[in-house]
Amino acid sequence: MTSFAIVGHLARTDGNFSINDLPGSGGRMDILCRCVNASLFLSHDLRRDVDCYLVLLGAPSGPKTVKFSGASVRSLSPDERSAAALIKKVIDVPCGSEFREGADGVSIRKGGLERLAQDMPLAVLDENGEDIRKAPALPGAFLLSDHLNFTDAENELVRDCPRYSVGPKCLHADHTITVLHNELDRRMSGWK
Amino acid sequence: MTSFAIVGHLARTDGNFSINDLPGSGGRMDILCRCVNASLFLSHDLRRDVDCYLVLLGAPSGPKTVKFSGASVRSLSPDERSAAALIKKVIDVPCGSEFREGADGVSIRKGGLERLAQDMPLAVLDENGEDIRKAPALPGAFLLSDHLNFTDAENELVRDCPRYSVGPKCLHADHTITVLHNELDRRMSGWK
Repeated sequence: MTSFAIVGHLARTDGNFSINDLPGSGGRMDILCRCVNASLFLSHDLRRDVDCYLVLLGAPSGPKTVKFSGASVRSLSPDERSAAALIKKVIDVPCGSEFREGADGVSIRKGGLERLAQDMPLAVLDENGEDIRKAPALPGAFLLSDHLNFTDAENELVRDCPRYSVGPKCLHADHTITVLHNELDRRMSGWK
Repeated sequence: MTSFAIVGHLARTDGNFSINDLPGSGGRMDILCRCVNASLFLSHDLRRDVDCYLVLLGAPSGPKTVKFSGASVRSLSPDERSAAALIKKVIDVPCGSEFREGADGVSIRKGGLERLAQDMPLAVLDENGEDIRKAPALPGAFLLSDHLNFTDAENELVRDCPRYSVGPKCLHADHTITVLHNELDRRMSGWK
């Protein structure tokens, strides 16, 4: 099982955003939708052993976390609007601090990064981290940020987490996930 | 200079498609838009030394090729709609067999893969190709297909091209481009 968690610092936390304007009205929800795609899609198949957590920190409802479970998600296509439509479907589902499913394989709970860090040991993607190709072993849960850097409070939360880099260039979160998958795929298949 | 060319077998060849329905009305134009993103975007920067060619083979106007030039493109954001809006802006520009710019850094010409193969030596991405990590050197122009396999006629055109694989899993075209970029970035930066 591999997990990816992406912090959406401005990502809207209710359904009051337009599928036709994910960058603006969604608070860069487009980035999170591309991360869902990068996390879960193979060509003509889904990665059933992957979960993708979207940590939504924008207006108006405080932190919420949406979980896409590769094992059970349905009706997901690779385009941004498809993931966005599923986010919109679950985002106003009444929920507490435990995940509640609002669509097949898509669930939501209150709470953000602090809550998530209690659930699983996160590794942080960081330009100055250890090269993923050089690491003797790779962990199972990775944390990434959207177009904004982690805040000081977030950095404090993950201060002791291991840090990894995917390469010499600074990449978008979804591209980083794709490169990570490639390294994990190679290790699983003996291609390394 | 690195070039990526993606064949869109059903991709609409006039502007009669909706930005709100790229998979359907655009003939899977969403795939090509994600390939533009994967080809050209770094975090907070563009890859100025990359060109991305979209070979559009769908209805109604015969083959056309749209070229995104990293060196000169403007007004391009990473979301699918942004690339699609630029494609829509140039797609009905009257053109012949040479590229004609219809928006900054985005140009169009008549002709498809046969014409493109005359311009540059293409390498094909293929599950059974040589592992890109093992290849002593990598070429500068790569050909990929959308969600459909290359046709027999296309395979015949590229029969003698070198073939490369990015890993053990069959990936979407945009993910393949991202993994290729990572390998090229590493080689350029001495990270390999």
